[in-house]
Amino acid sequence: MPGGRHHLQIPGPTNVPERVLRALAAPTIDHRGPEFAALALDLLERLKPVFGTRGPVIVYPSSGTGAWEAALVNTLSPGDRVLACETGHFATLWRDMAERLGLRVEFLPGDWRHGADPDAIGARLAADRGHDVAAVMVVHNETSTGVRSRVADVRAAMDRAGHPALLLVDTISSLASMDYGHDEWGVDVTVGCSQKGLMLPPGLGFNAVSGKALDAARTARLPRSYWDWEPILAANRDGHFPYTPPTNLLYGLREALALLEEEGLPAVFARHDRHAAATRSAVRAWGLDILCADPREYSSSLTAVLLPEPYDAGKVRRVILERFDMSLGTGLGRLAGRVFRIGHLGHFDDLSLAGTLCGVEMGLAAAGVPIERGGVTAALTSLEAS
Amino acid sequence: MPGGRHHLQIPGPTNVPERVLRALAAPTIDHRGPEFAALALDLLERLKPVFGTRGPVIVYPSSGTGAWEAALVNTLSPGDRVLACETGHFATLWRDMAERLGLRVEFLPGDWRHGADPDAIGARLAADRGHDVAAVMVVHNETSTGVRSRVADVRAAMDRAGHPALLLVDTISSLASMDYGHDEWGVDVTVGCSQKGLMLPPGLGFNAVSGKALDAARTARLPRSYWDWEPILAANRDGHFPYTPPTNLLYGLREALALLEEEGLPAVFARHDRHAAATRSAVRAWGLDILCADPREYSSSLTAVLLPEPYDAGKVRRVILERFDMSLGTGLGRLAGRVFRIGHLGHFDDLSLAGTLCGVEMGLAAAGVPIERGGVTAALTSLEAS
Amino acid sequence: MPGGRHHLQIPGPTNVPERVLRALAAPTIDHRGPEFAALALDLLERLKPVFGTRGPVIVYPSSGTGAWEAALVNTLSPGDRVLACETGHFATLWRDMAERLGLRVEFLPGDWRHGADPDAIGARLAADRGHDVAAVMVVHNETSTGVRSRVADVRAAMDRAGHPALLLVDTISSLASMDYGHDEWGVDVTVGCSQKGLMLPPGLGFNAVSGKALDAARTARLPRSYWDWEPILAANRDGHFPYTPPTNLLYGLREALALLEEEGLPAVFARHDRHAAATRSAVRAWGLDILCADPREYSSSLTAVLLPEPYDAGKVRRVILERFDMSLGTGLGRLAGRVFRIGHLGHFDDLSLAGTLCGVEMGLAAAGVPIERGGVTAALTSLEAS
Amino acid sequence: MPGGRHHLQIPGPTNVPERVLRALAAPTIDHRGPEFAALALDLLERLKPVFGTRGPVIVYPSSGTGAWEAALVNTLSPGDRVLACETGHFATLWRDMAERLGLRVEFLPGDWRHGADPDAIGARLAADRGHDVAAVMVVHNETSTGVRSRVADVRAAMDRAGHPALLLVDTISSLASMDYGHDEWGVDVTVGCSQKGLMLPPGLGFNAVSGKALDAARTARLPRSYWDWEPILAANRDGHFPYTPPTNLLYGLREALALLEEEGLPAVFARHDRHAAATRSAVRAWGLDILCADPREYSSSLTAVLLPEPYDAGKVRRVILERFDMSLGTGLGRLAGRVFRIGHLGHFDDLSLAGTLCGVEMGLAAAGVPIERGGVTAALTSLEAS
Repeated sequence: MPGGRHHLQIPGPTNVPERVLRALAAPTIDHRGPEFAALALDLLERLKPVFGTRGPVIVYPSSGTGAWEAALVNTLSPGDRVLACETGHFATLWRDMAERLGLRVEFLPGDWRHGADPDAIGARLAADRGHDVAAVMVVHNETSTGVRSRVADVRAAMDRAGHPALLLVDTISSLASMDYGHDEWGVDVTVGCSQKGLMLPPGLGFNAVSGKALDAARTARLPRSYWDWEPILAANRDGHFPYTPPTNLLYGLREALALLEEEGLPAVFARHDRHAAATRSAVRAWGLDILCADPREYSSSLTAVLLPEPYDAGKVRRVILERFDMSLGTGLGRLAGRVFRIGHLGHFDDLSLAGTLCGVEMGLAAAGVPIERGGVTAALTSLEAS
Repeated sequence: MPGGRHHLQIPGPTNVPERVLRALAAPTIDHRGPEFAALALDLLERLKPVFGTRGPVIVYPSSGTGAWEAALVNTLSPGDRVLACETGHFATLWRDMAERLGLRVEFLPGDWRHGADPDAIGARLAADRGHDVAAVMVVHNETSTGVRSRVADVRAAMDRAGHPALLLVDTISSLASMDYGHDEWGVDVTVGCSQKGLMLPPGLGFNAVSGKALDAARTARLPRSYWDWEPILAANRDGHFPYTPPTNLLYGLREALALLEEEGLPAVFARHDRHAAATRSAVRAWGLDILCADPREYSSSLTAVLLPEPYDAGKVRRVILERFDMSLGTGLGRLAGRVFRIGHLGHFDDLSLAGTLCGVEMGLAAAGVPIERGGVTAALTSLEAS
Repeated sequence: MPGGRHHLQIPGPTNVPERVLRALAAPTIDHRGPEFAALALDLLERLKPVFGTRGPVIVYPSSGTGAWEAALVNTLSPGDRVLACETGHFATLWRDMAERLGLRVEFLPGDWRHGADPDAIGARLAADRGHDVAAVMVVHNETSTGVRSRVADVRAAMDRAGHPALLLVDTISSLASMDYGHDEWGVDVTVGCSQKGLMLPPGLGFNAVSGKALDAARTARLPRSYWDWEPILAANRDGHFPYTPPTNLLYGLREALALLEEEGLPAVFARHDRHAAATRSAVRAWGLDILCADPREYSSSLTAVLLPEPYDAGKVRRVILERFDMSLGTGLGRLAGRVFRIGHLGHFDDLSLAGTLCGVEMGLAAAGVPIERGGVTAALTSLEAS
Repeated sequence: MPGGRHHLQIPGPTNVPERVLRALAAPTIDHRGPEFAALALDLLERLKPVFGTRGPVIVYPSSGTGAWEAALVNTLSPGDRVLACETGHFATLWRDMAERLGLRVEFLPGDWRHGADPDAIGARLAADRGHDVAAVMVVHNETSTGVRSRVADVRAAMDRAGHPALLLVDTISSLASMDYGHDEWGVDVTVGCSQKGLMLPPGLGFNAVSGKALDAARTARLPRSYWDWEPILAANRDGHFPYTPPTNLLYGLREALALLEEEGLPAVFARHDRHAAATRSAVRAWGLDILCADPREYSSSLTAVLLPEPYDAGKVRRVILERFDMSLGTGLGRLAGRVFRIGHLGHFDDLSLAGTLCGVEMGLAAAGVPIERGGVTAALTSLEAS
């Protein structure tokens, strides 16, 4: 459908602001020269508030998946036991990765409609008298379901259990979109990436790292080289990297951080909360179900919509792509065909959200899903009230 | 209002597609070299269908206003009488220009809610036994009012009157958005520019020129140099220009023409018709008046909305700019404060229109204008039905 | 010749810095909105030092040729007598323009190897007891010859003659490259453009205007509308324009002015002087003639090289374009085939100059022109000594 | 030193062509959608000739260092013995990585002025009756020294020894610059990256993989997940990736491959050979030593220049950076202060090389290194003769 722009409303990669896109196109410079060092030192400092940390943030030329691997290989040893929570497709992929790397993963079962269960984690750790569990892996915002895990509550449960396990948290689709406190919540490794709330193209992975995680890294024995924090932190001290950094994505990062700073992180989070609420108003008005079953756990960066039987979410997405040139997120894993996901994160505003919801409403109707037509109206009412 | 993009919904300049923006950023080349000549020859040919002509199209480094001046100084002589039609603010400006250049303008009065009146023109010309009137000036799509003049009917009226006057037509805000036939409608000079339907930044002015206009140019005596068609046409023959052409805007033009060709001009026009119809559905559902009084004359590229007394259109625009980062067109000349104008032309699509109308609806409400809230719903219904 | 970049060493358009190119690609905004007004007010102020003036600078969407026309039509009346100086091809074109606009031009003859002759101008004006001459037209830096006219000396000669004629000066290829003082030298209208020392693509024309010129405009009777200073100055007061300004070129202008300000205008001029001296060292070492016959009048932005009979400068340019992907300026008008011109202005540096001269030296040899091979060596010596 | 562009003449990252830079700035798209799949399938096919292979090429969001790690972890098991060759700094880093990953590395000593010694490798393998050595690691073009290893000769030596070890080759700074035959030379894993001959910013790592390497991967037991070839190859079959690919760098890759295809790989290689020969002519004429001791092993993408005692290469680089805004490669590891490296690879041409060498010649003189001044002259002679 020509005539306008593509509407990229998957929950990441997100619409990259034109200021960031133009920043990407600056000439690559010598990564060993003084101009680069100044850039790197500046970025490494300005990244910290985005993670809610005063400690170091490590930047990888990688996807977010690489940053997951980095979190594991820097802190754990072959055969270590880790506790993971089945919150959805990405939690499952992370579990699989841990197993491939030689860890023994205990996977607390879940229904893909709830976040990680702090009580279940607490109970499991309390039972682990020998402190056999080396780490707990939690996905803050499960991109496949639109469910937010209550990380602070998980931390509290771990503390109540008096258990020394590390807390590793995936913020792939919540970073820079939803309130997050690496330091405040006692997270040991926070895993992030560039192409969601940070409004960049894919290609950067992040680890925010606690002192306890750095201690763990000293004795962790999983083989590591590319992901090894130590040489990176050493080189970062004067603005360098142990291998060639992805310079042009760093140019983009500088611009993206400027955008976040201009708006202010609290305003960024409030904007996402507001858009998520309006989106849920629309879904309810259509008479459809929000996949996330617990209102305390609603994601502010995406909403997964559950279709009634026998309607096919894949067909809805295809119709919307063809008619309105809008991409929505597909149902992943066991949710294939059952849900579609609306990304409302990153570089986004009221009118873009309104246009998105108009497209979903028209697309649902065109695909033959029986809905009430008041979704857009409900969303506007929600936007106007907040 | 940070967090997203600016929504540029004035009736031009329009949202420039990112493909065009990136094309603008290519390095400037030697305008006397072979690569430039190939570019120019290609563009001059591909511009013709946009004007509906097989004759030459002249490209100026200028605004559209410059192309107006070019149309006058190439065809007319000091003291010539011309007939113009008061369709709105821009028709009035064009009248003023003609007077400043030393022409005697007869201005057929209008109420700014109708297009040029073919019957009045025909009557005036029929009365002009001495063929004193050298040219008729018509604005095809009056940007200040959203009214389309029926150019083919004007031509027919001139023919019926058997009058030899030239027909000069401004297509500033209709070119490449609304059906237009320079050759078919017997227009002598068509005036256009880059920053509306052509989806470019401002900086290019155009004249499409009939054989009769070229003949007139041979004897026209208004002083001219920069605007003179003759040296331009001579230099264009091998892809050159008599003075330095605006190379980077021509790069953008190449990309913009490619976009139009990919969609196809009939589809482009149909898209604009459809979006205009949906917009009018919204305006009616809000209970507001469309400025254009004659449905035969609705513009497809913009809609001017008339507010009831005592509501101030300027306030509506300010509220919408502040809350939703969307620019709408202001009321110009005698319409100041009375109307705002919604541009729905150029690089545009259903969801962008939907977002625009959501913003207008919320903005009208926020500005305290009493409206019915069903505008967006009506617009979606209109879009879905067509 | 693929594998690298094109080397654009004509005397304009010049190599546009990538910062400027990227700035061009920002989204077009509403030219009636507050963001645009702030941009315009800022630019109009920052342009002044580039012209060496505290008075207004007028910006046209046009080529430099348009700015010539503006200088004439704002200050002169039909039949006015003007005095011009035959310094080369562009002086001749400007003469032709003045004649086409209905002025009576007296053309002081020249040999295309010298600048305007202050003594001859002074003598002619002294003889003009009736003050019949309304204006003197001088090309500061004749782009076709690489000769700089001594504008301050022209002014002094006019003053000595006690003649009230206006002084109109073309700085097309010297602006922002060579020292210039609109106010200090008592120039009335300075004509400039974007695509040379200002390092922008073509598309902007400029007039810097003295109070005396503004006075003249009040009574000047050449028809004018597009070029009319008065409505532009009136609209500029609050950052607007009477017709749609070329927004994206203005974005580029903002970046170009930043580059000039970062380097500092005196440093910019010194750089051009230094590169011109090195270029002349190379030309002399090759045993070729510099077209400019008077060392006081050497241009700092380009050097025209005169070939001995029977060698064809066109062939040299073709060989260099084919082998080294470098464009040089052609011989214009009566110099066709006799000279080629090396542009060393704008966004330029020592190594780019060195590469340019290496290409010229190899190209001359490849084209069979008998030269000494020490040109590059001489240029490096010159660069190292300064 | 303002006034022009930065000259990036390190041996990578290299000057990114503006066409590639602009391509990077296109909007990111859905990596699970049909448009992305078509892009990926196209790129994966067009990458093959660059490696000289008909087999698969794997693309990582990583630096080249990541692609090294991928080559090791996919083919080897903990404790495996590998044979590496001390050709310079990067061979040493690769050795260190292998050790960190738990391999036992035998490091054939070298003087950092020669390539890998085929005879020594052959002898070592012939002595390895038990086929204990699992892989041979060779750096094709040692970026720290400008020495090219004769990979085909290494292969022949391995074949003569009848040894089944895998051959892993680093082409970081030779890929797309110097002739290379993954298939023809019997290489098992070729390691490459984006920011050198491929003319892209950093951020992509590559593995070209033989059938034998794929077989080895089935039994290799080093832990792996991110780098694992198998899920990547499976997903690549329909144009997808197991984790989010770096979309915008892939846009750049598409443009870079187009540039290589337009020029033709044989022409690209010939251009690099020619520029390297001219550079060496300059170095010899200056009276300085080329670090590479064996003319059969000259690199065509960079030249390392050895300074006589007691001159400091770091000072030369600083002077050149300050005066001429040109970055040269530093001396790495044991060569610190002794050599500087001139990159002449990627997007490069005769005049850019000439400018580069002019800068080196002036910089050496300015830094007080005693040189003959004929280097540039010798380079031009070399360029003109070839």
